[in-house]
Amino acid sequence: MNLTKTLTWAISALVVLPLVASANIDIHDAPSRPKNMIIMVGDGMGPAYTSAYRYYQNNPDTEEIEQTVFDRLLVGMASTYPARQSGFVTDSAASATALATGVKSYNGAISVDINKRPLTSIMQMAKARGMAIGIAVTSQVNHATPAAFLAHNESRRNYDEIAQSYLTSEADVILGGGQKYFPAPLLAQFKAKGYQHIDDFSMLAQINKGKVLGLFADVQLPWVIDQQDSTQLSQLTQKALDLLSQNEQGFVLLVEGSLIDWAGHNNDIATAMGEMHGFANAIEVVEQFVRANPDTLMVVTADHNTGGLSIGANGEYAWDTNLLQGIQASPAKIAEQAIAQDNWQAAVNQALGFEANEAELIRLSNARMQGKAALETSLKQLIDTRSYTGWTTTGHTGGDVQVFAAGPAADLFKGNQDNTDIAEKMMSLLPKTQ
Amino acid sequence: MNLTKTLTWAISALVVLPLVASANIDIHDAPSRPKNMIIMVGDGMGPAYTSAYRYYQNNPDTEEIEQTVFDRLLVGMASTYPARQSGFVTDSAASATALATGVKSYNGAISVDINKRPLTSIMQMAKARGMAIGIAVTSQVNHATPAAFLAHNESRRNYDEIAQSYLTSEADVILGGGQKYFPAPLLAQFKAKGYQHIDDFSMLAQINKGKVLGLFADVQLPWVIDQQDSTQLSQLTQKALDLLSQNEQGFVLLVEGSLIDWAGHNNDIATAMGEMHGFANAIEVVEQFVRANPDTLMVVTADHNTGGLSIGANGEYAWDTNLLQGIQASPAKIAEQAIAQDNWQAAVNQALGFEANEAELIRLSNARMQGKAALETSLKQLIDTRSYTGWTTTGHTGGDVQVFAAGPAADLFKGNQDNTDIAEKMMSLLPKTQ
Repeated sequence: MNLTKTLTWAISALVVLPLVASANIDIHDAPSRPKNMIIMVGDGMGPAYTSAYRYYQNNPDTEEIEQTVFDRLLVGMASTYPARQSGFVTDSAASATALATGVKSYNGAISVDINKRPLTSIMQMAKARGMAIGIAVTSQVNHATPAAFLAHNESRRNYDEIAQSYLTSEADVILGGGQKYFPAPLLAQFKAKGYQHIDDFSMLAQINKGKVLGLFADVQLPWVIDQQDSTQLSQLTQKALDLLSQNEQGFVLLVEGSLIDWAGHNNDIATAMGEMHGFANAIEVVEQFVRANPDTLMVVTADHNTGGLSIGANGEYAWDTNLLQGIQASPAKIAEQAIAQDNWQAAVNQALGFEANEAELIRLSNARMQGKAALETSLKQLIDTRSYTGWTTTGHTGGDVQVFAAGPAADLFKGNQDNTDIAEKMMSLLPKTQ
Repeated sequence: MNLTKTLTWAISALVVLPLVASANIDIHDAPSRPKNMIIMVGDGMGPAYTSAYRYYQNNPDTEEIEQTVFDRLLVGMASTYPARQSGFVTDSAASATALATGVKSYNGAISVDINKRPLTSIMQMAKARGMAIGIAVTSQVNHATPAAFLAHNESRRNYDEIAQSYLTSEADVILGGGQKYFPAPLLAQFKAKGYQHIDDFSMLAQINKGKVLGLFADVQLPWVIDQQDSTQLSQLTQKALDLLSQNEQGFVLLVEGSLIDWAGHNNDIATAMGEMHGFANAIEVVEQFVRANPDTLMVVTADHNTGGLSIGANGEYAWDTNLLQGIQASPAKIAEQAIAQDNWQAAVNQALGFEANEAELIRLSNARMQGKAALETSLKQLIDTRSYTGWTTTGHTGGDVQVFAAGPAADLFKGNQDNTDIAEKMMSLLPKTQ
């Protein structure tokens, strides 16, 4: 952390904001320093994803292209490169470390520096100030991004160690997937520490105060596109807000749309758009909270780009959102069902929402004979070809990501910045220690 | 580096103030409405290009990643989709029409609406207010982007008609390539209208006032990477500023880094980075002008993304800028020279700045036997593989582009907007008509 930088932000916050607020204070009743802060991460959500989501969400029956919550809240962009030894393309661990601690580290690092020494996270700083802290995510709760906010470990792969270390994280709210990493003895330790443990969405309503460890899936939550509704992350987010906001000293909450990245790694556009929708819904929940609580700052960003997604590919100046909107299930689920059925072509056509032509059916049939994985790949290729979707990698890419913000001090995040700047700015907005 | 950042924030703070309080006008002496406006278009320059350019420009001998002019000036982003009939992915004609007129049209349209009726451009509006107007570009001057600012035509392909129509455009400054579209009889007509005609950079110094038609290449200007220096567009931009700023009623200038797009269509990362450097240099010329003339607004954007460029590809979390920085010439030029030489391997190795290994040399040798085009393609593939650069298309893609601004009313362009909004905002800043 750089003291000069931190001071600069602190000064910016104190100098710029009161001036801004003085014109608006009677209208918005917004203080210059937020009581609560919510950071939301769309894992892998590079700029192409938010543009794509706008067109995916567009209502074709209206003349206009409807704005999304991302359009409403955009304020700037951020670079994401990790510590020098890891080059220019970050993984989720290094970028989450940057967002949680303000320090760049190596790919794989969970809030430790390049010498593997623990770094102080914004969550620890918040706790030291009597604030409540929590996370709500769609991956396992001990995956890289939430882990960097609640733990310290030399490797993101040490899932069991990270889960164990959550016991001493002092987190008030832990919501997401990952039952397999929390065996009965560990759960007993959490209960002994006063955590309420739930493992089903229907149990959320029972939790109205106190600390909670909610694990709703063995590993990650199911894909949004395969669900009846797209409110899983919204529900977790709303519950986290309800619980954390009971603390009079304020709170810091991390919300992650974790699986946007996973769909990107899979080069699976239909599933990625479903995850974008789930994340956008959660952002709207937070946006409503900020409107109702003008003492709350929300900052939304991505940790990196995944997949090298492009709207249009192979020379075609087009992107077929009608086709994408019609897809009823993830390629993984369509493939699973098609493997189990004799009359698979009709089922596939229905799930895709369009009729595959003869050549396409032959390709799918050949793939089906090789098994579920091959059929899923073939389905994704068919969807990419038909929708003109492009990918360059099953990994990450190094382009800048967007930054979205609302609430007091939102203007601090405008323009270009580094991902470490986001953390340092948020830290500079915490209450001063005694 | 920290000083630069601190200054950037200080400048950000100053940019905020004019919106907040009119009391700041006497401090900064910046009017709320600009006298002059400069719009700069990086053709095809999607967000991946500006991130890539930061890392390409990075000095490996310093600890920090150096900021670029793009980082300094970022204020927002813009959507680029064309009129509905052309889908979500624009071409340069429709997007230039949007930027010049504030109206969406079909792909191919040069400032005509979807019914092929002429649209009023910001250049026409400026002329009607007694302002001077001009363009400085690296493509032929009658290519789609400048054409939309100076002409109206149902098709960008009607190059001769567009060149002819420039006679009645009332443009004061026309600088770029395109000699082949301006035959002697047309040049005679321009001279009869009072234009000074020049066709070599060495003649720029002779032009100190009045109208000028400067055509410095048969079609486009040569690639920056193949030049001794990277100042061609900077020189044209400086000359345009010198001439146009003599008008007491102010001016509107379009500057285009046209060939970023061409290199993107070619999926040629080394050449694209050279063009980015040439464009960045021109932006710095304008930035200096804006600092010296606080009554001038500059807005920089792109018309669309080209190529589906990504930093990192094929599963690799890396981008090798050292390799890219070492490349001495465009793959086109390297191929041309290698075709003409017996000892071509040594020449290719020297021009690439690295030693191709045995397998790579075999691939290059096979391609060389097929001719220059095949060798050029093979060289680009070698550079992509070695540098971990990804592409999804030889065409355009539909993601949002960035918006950069400085000067009075720069804050108008912050956050998310549509490309038509950029034109409408600039038009709203023109002097009121009587």
